Amino acid sequence: MQQSIIDPKALRNALGTFTTGVTIITTRDGEGQAVGLTANSFNSVSLDPPLVLWSLAKTALSLPAFTSTTHWNVHVLSTEQQELSMRFASKGENKFSGLELDQGVSDAPLIQQCTARFQCRTAFTHDGGDHIIFIGEVIAFDQSDLPPLAFQSGQYAVTAKKPWQELKLSSVEEPLDCSYSEDLLGYLVGRAHFQMLGKMQQILNSQSVTALHFFALSVLAIQDNVQLDDINAHIGYTGHQLDVIHMNELVELGLVKSLDSKYMLTAKGHKATLLHIAEAKSIEDDIVSQLGEGDIMALKVMLKRLIQQTDPGLPDLWENAS
Amino acid sequence: MQQSIIDPKALRNALGTFTTGVTIITTRDGEGQAVGLTANSFNSVSLDPPLVLWSLAKTALSLPAFTSTTHWNVHVLSTEQQELSMRFASKGENKFSGLELDQGVSDAPLIQQCTARFQCRTAFTHDGGDHIIFIGEVIAFDQSDLPPLAFQSGQYAVTAKKPWQELKLSSVEEPLDCSYSEDLLGYLVGRAHFQMLGKMQQILNSQSVTALHFFALSVLAIQDNVQLDDINAHIGYTGHQLDVIHMNELVELGLVKSLDSKYMLTAKGHKATLLHIAEAKSIEDDIVSQLGEGDIMALKVMLKRLIQQTDPGLPDLWENAS
Repeated sequence: MQQSIIDPKALRNALGTFTTGVTIITTRDGEGQAVGLTANSFNSVSLDPPLVLWSLAKTALSLPAFTSTTHWNVHVLSTEQQELSMRFASKGENKFSGLELDQGVSDAPLIQQCTARFQCRTAFTHDGGDHIIFIGEVIAFDQSDLPPLAFQSGQYAVTAKKPWQELKLSSVEEPLDCSYSEDLLGYLVGRAHFQMLGKMQQILNSQSVTALHFFALSVLAIQDNVQLDDINAHIGYTGHQLDVIHMNELVELGLVKSLDSKYMLTAKGHKATLLHIAEAKSIEDDIVSQLGEGDIMALKVMLKRLIQQTDPGLPDLWENAS
Repeated sequence: MQQSIIDPKALRNALGTFTTGVTIITTRDGEGQAVGLTANSFNSVSLDPPLVLWSLAKTALSLPAFTSTTHWNVHVLSTEQQELSMRFASKGENKFSGLELDQGVSDAPLIQQCTARFQCRTAFTHDGGDHIIFIGEVIAFDQSDLPPLAFQSGQYAVTAKKPWQELKLSSVEEPLDCSYSEDLLGYLVGRAHFQMLGKMQQILNSQSVTALHFFALSVLAIQDNVQLDDINAHIGYTGHQLDVIHMNELVELGLVKSLDSKYMLTAKGHKATLLHIAEAKSIEDDIVSQLGEGDIMALKVMLKRLIQQTDPGLPDLWENAS
């Protein structure tokens, strides 16, 4: 696959495999107008003195502002700032409209809610082919706990920490290729599901509620006053079906009442599902505190994409939410 | 949180929030010895002419080699090359031992199995505080399909693509904070599990096998000749327990036989589980082809960490594998 003639498009693709964060770099032009652009060419250079660099296309409209200014700010964007990244990557005007700005050491705009911010003074600039390389001294900086946005191969991305050692669930060497391995996606998703459901078990047991009851109560917590068929339409994908006997068990527990063959939660049932929701959120909070907010965000993004990919055409559970 | 006195450690932490890929940069010293180091200060600068840059500490042992050479290679590492990254980040000798090298346009070492490689000729160098900035012209490059390794806040990471639009499963606005939302981790993991299991349903139906049977067969595919209690120890975490009636159903289907109250797969049972494994792998391949190999790797890493985090102390399924 060696290439000796440099095709710019292929080169851009290859360079794009190098993952980067996403920054917005801001300054003010000679007239005091706020100027900013999205850049992923940022990098740190030196700690002593503290230097960072980024590069800007010679054709960029904002070039004159940056070559005539002495101060600019680099904002490492958080996962919540993807929209801002797109806004500052476009040529539109009023990029700053609606943004509340902080006051920094210079008058360069300082955007809020970033993962990190570096306030810089131009140390020197260098010619870099079709770009100018800006090297700046960091004169102030701050950092938040917000997980950072990443960019790779032309797409926004989120990162998940990769343990230093390969993460193995079993202490045993990998089995033969023709057997089950712990690396099978279906196994991992299934085991994760059952272990998380297992953590709900104590509260379900205390309510004499089975997993199947729990699924039914969850549907009723979102859609009240529905028939058994509707409940089953929402939980049928679990491979389980509720029948009248199951529903009667819930009625006997005082959690559900029925009227005209429609089911709804009782006050006790509402209270029970609120406990379920609180417990589910508490289990999730525990996991987030161990694995990190950014990583759980990456997991959720992946799971949603997997769910969309494998969706057998489930009805929208929230569509007629009560 | 503004800081005006620059604390080097705090600055390094803040700079580390900017996600990067991981590269190994190689050359040969005056005596023809291969030299290489891990760097994440790489970035692209210009397409016309094709320029890239990276920076090297002035105290680095390899500095003389890079300042006296004209050619060096940048390797964007894949997720499989984390160990190599650590090896080239250390001060050890013989970093290249055991590595098969490709022949590039120069004699600089060209490492295999990378995500992308850029063969460069030094265009110019610049002083960058405690580092030297190397700017090189790309004279050849290539790229593979291997997902790239990332680095963030001092940790290796894998990336998962984030859709340009926020990914929503429901068409409805988010419900109240005190209710279930589609963003609840337990819901997402559960729905992903049941949808993937649902994709196995056709083959299970054709074998008259239930999900519970399937779990039992999966255990027997790994550990043959075990008692019912042992099977239940492995699938108990699903909230389901097998009894003798379930096992007799599998015996009647000709998939399992029992001897001295121990169970094992029959030839037909082995064949059935091989079909399950093939189907599970085929379902996974479909998902990989849609979502991308790197993203599924990120998903698996996250699921394994979640499983370790929520493990109620399950026995190692593969420990006594037959």
